[in-house]
Amino acid sequence: MCSSDLKFGVNLKPDSRKMQHTISIVMNNRFGVLSRVSGLFSSRGFNIESLNVAESSDPKVSRMTIVTRGDKAKIEQITKQLNKLIDVIKVVDLTEESFVDRELLLIKMNAEARVREEILRIVDLFRAKVVDVSTNNYTIEVTGDEGKITGFLDMLSPLGIKEIVRSGRIAISRGNKSLN
Amino acid sequence: MCSSDLKFGVNLKPDSRKMQHTISIVMNNRFGVLSRVSGLFSSRGFNIESLNVAESSDPKVSRMTIVTRGDKAKIEQITKQLNKLIDVIKVVDLTEESFVDRELLLIKMNAEARVREEILRIVDLFRAKVVDVSTNNYTIEVTGDEGKITGFLDMLSPLGIKEIVRSGRIAISRGNKSLN
Repeated sequence: MCSSDLKFGVNLKPDSRKMQHTISIVMNNRFGVLSRVSGLFSSRGFNIESLNVAESSDPKVSRMTIVTRGDKAKIEQITKQLNKLIDVIKVVDLTEESFVDRELLLIKMNAEARVREEILRIVDLFRAKVVDVSTNNYTIEVTGDEGKITGFLDMLSPLGIKEIVRSGRIAISRGNKSLN
Repeated sequence: MCSSDLKFGVNLKPDSRKMQHTISIVMNNRFGVLSRVSGLFSSRGFNIESLNVAESSDPKVSRMTIVTRGDKAKIEQITKQLNKLIDVIKVVDLTEESFVDRELLLIKMNAEARVREEILRIVDLFRAKVVDVSTNNYTIEVTGDEGKITGFLDMLSPLGIKEIVRSGRIAISRGNKSLN
């Protein structure tokens, strides 16, 4: 299971049988719980494509979103094991239902005179925002689902990306359902 | 060090001597590195206020942003220890320099008839966006720095928050500097 070609981040050669899953975890805001959750994933040989965690509406409770890839049976197994961890309150595989997902991206571009106009055109088309400017650099903020973020990066890539920071996906179920 | 009142998430009684630090980590996109990083924080008794990790512009490399709190000497100690971990390429405490930070928030609101107008007014003022609507629920997306996100939550809180998902802070240095 723990072969060295299993990556922490994006699977370079995604296996079509291994569907992408978006898992929400509600947990007590306690010391060490992140370490236990990530340890469970690595000990089971699961690659995590992105992960984020921050406080929820109740400061005693945190909420984590993990994007991972695996066949349905193995994902079910890991959600069961997550549920058994100390301080884990609730685990939901959102992939089973309808959900809204977004990601936040900050990107620093080489903005030499010859590419500035094109960068600003793309920023405009994607409803992105320039949040910092310096000599020959634009830093841009954009949010969107995976398709939009990928499209935005594909457009900017030939123009000279200097640095990227991504939040990873955050997700919330559609409609009246709530994890709280 | 590992007393049980050390929280994983937001420190409920922030100690003024313990300044908030925003740490960027560039790491090989390898299996287990997240578990090693979070294990280091928990074994040293550091509380993590938020954490996120996703791929960077190079799919072989991931980038993590951690928000933590501690006095300067202890933070220096932990950045040195992080630098020694396998697959960690670079660690920078952005707090030492000028940086742009943003967070993404998805929030599901109780939207009964009597509060709808007020919710939409706040959405408008904060340049937020309603991304899902159902009977009696609005799901709203907003991005901003800590001050804006806190202000937005303070305004919505009395109107009936059902669910919150936060990405945690992502950050990038201002100007020409780059971690890559």
